[in-house]
Amino acid sequence: MIKTLAVVGGTHGNEFTGIYLLKKWQDKPALITRPSFITEMLFANPQAYQQNKRYIDHDLNRCFDQTHLSNDKLTSIEQTRAKEINQLLGPKGDPRVDFIIDLHTTTSNMGPTLLITKKGAFYNQLAAYISMKMPQVMISCDEDHKKNEEHHFLSSIAKNCVMVEVGPVPQSVLRHDVFEASDVMTQHILDFVEHFNNNTVPPLPKTTTAYRFIESISLPLNADGSRNGMIHKDIQDKDFTEIKQGQPLFMTFNGETVCYEGEKTVYGSFINEAAYYDNNLAMSLLEKITLTTY
Amino acid sequence: MIKTLAVVGGTHGNEFTGIYLLKKWQDKPALITRPSFITEMLFANPQAYQQNKRYIDHDLNRCFDQTHLSNDKLTSIEQTRAKEINQLLGPKGDPRVDFIIDLHTTTSNMGPTLLITKKGAFYNQLAAYISMKMPQVMISCDEDHKKNEEHHFLSSIAKNCVMVEVGPVPQSVLRHDVFEASDVMTQHILDFVEHFNNNTVPPLPKTTTAYRFIESISLPLNADGSRNGMIHKDIQDKDFTEIKQGQPLFMTFNGETVCYEGEKTVYGSFINEAAYYDNNLAMSLLEKITLTTY
Repeated sequence: MIKTLAVVGGTHGNEFTGIYLLKKWQDKPALITRPSFITEMLFANPQAYQQNKRYIDHDLNRCFDQTHLSNDKLTSIEQTRAKEINQLLGPKGDPRVDFIIDLHTTTSNMGPTLLITKKGAFYNQLAAYISMKMPQVMISCDEDHKKNEEHHFLSSIAKNCVMVEVGPVPQSVLRHDVFEASDVMTQHILDFVEHFNNNTVPPLPKTTTAYRFIESISLPLNADGSRNGMIHKDIQDKDFTEIKQGQPLFMTFNGETVCYEGEKTVYGSFINEAAYYDNNLAMSLLEKITLTTY
Repeated sequence: MIKTLAVVGGTHGNEFTGIYLLKKWQDKPALITRPSFITEMLFANPQAYQQNKRYIDHDLNRCFDQTHLSNDKLTSIEQTRAKEINQLLGPKGDPRVDFIIDLHTTTSNMGPTLLITKKGAFYNQLAAYISMKMPQVMISCDEDHKKNEEHHFLSSIAKNCVMVEVGPVPQSVLRHDVFEASDVMTQHILDFVEHFNNNTVPPLPKTTTAYRFIESISLPLNADGSRNGMIHKDIQDKDFTEIKQGQPLFMTFNGETVCYEGEKTVYGSFINEAAYYDNNLAMSLLEKITLTTY
């Protein structure tokens, strides 16, 4: 039974979609209200939004592992805000809020994507429900290899959580289509929770296609650590499509094409995501999996 | 006769394309060398690039009118840098450099666009040449209504100038296709200047279709000045296509569609450009014109 749910926007200050959805829903809370649970809203990083940046000192969505939260010496803007949010929605380990939906966007051509970081029948049903209601949604899984207290995402405060991740949209831009898809996907998640609480989940597809995170790969770098190339145009915008051996991945500034050399067919996501340049990450590699509903 | 030409990148610190093109060309200067003139390169705002921002204090590309340049009290980072660049390439009014190509990108779906801010047979021929060599290039004109000393663009330091403006690409992202288009368009401009100097300009189309700036229009605002809507999905990505009376322009957060009410058919550019949110600008409106080559 989920009694309290929080919809979070603006965890990254330059991802405008969630921030403006919160404004819309604050004017009309009935839109995200369901009879069997309480819905709260949280604007996670208004200071970063004011500065039109993803974050000011540290990526807020990497500050929620228990080690961070319990270390009083970590006092940057986001480290402090993480502790505040942990008090507001948590505390992690014994949280007040039962479910967190955290709204994100990406510059990558991922379309509407449901990011699942937990395992279990509940999530397999949720994935099946969302896929049935909104077939264009991609299901991306990066489930518990770690214990929950070691997870660093904001949404990991609650025992149950998902992230809504929609693109492509540039940082600091609001796109109507991305705004709508994020809105509709959130509504379906709320509907599913309502069905789950009332034991009225409709018949669902028996299986759902999903993609599971394997690893992140880096951009080509020079010996001094500077970038020596970019995402190849042949794979730009091709999130969730097959990457086979020989697929061009990068074009170096010297004009050399760097190809995928793995033998296993994989799939990319977060291809050329702006925020990943900080760490020179080029994309995530995923494997195709099947989630079993029943 | 153009004796000295400067290719400028990074006037906006989060428009990576020009910055990385400069890196490429600094490694292989022969790529942008032509026999009849000297080509220089300038990285205009490295401090903003370091901070991954368009600018730190002021938009550098609005700091080059004579009033700004001659006012010693203006000492912000970009105001100071503008005076430095004016010394390096200018000074405006009697500039050392004869031609500036300033490389920009946009989050709008403008494709490769040649921005012309001056009138004259030289530019009409240049536009015809670029259109002939690269038919996908859009020619956008916003010519001298002002005297040159009142122009605030960096490129206005030189007597002759153009801006290369390519999109869509998010801020802080390098896209291979945008990188290539910017590279190729710059090469064609250099080739044209070489032909012009040598009096070997080939036969050109007699006329070229172009678009001339009329006005910028704002996003819908609340009484308190906050944004009350976004670019409508029906016009998103439709740069340089017809806007007729009744065309949806905006969707308010209340769900109301705001349409174009003008009687004159116009065309949009910079539709949903991220950098224009600062001033709540939604897009530029343009009229279709014909440039006559001979």
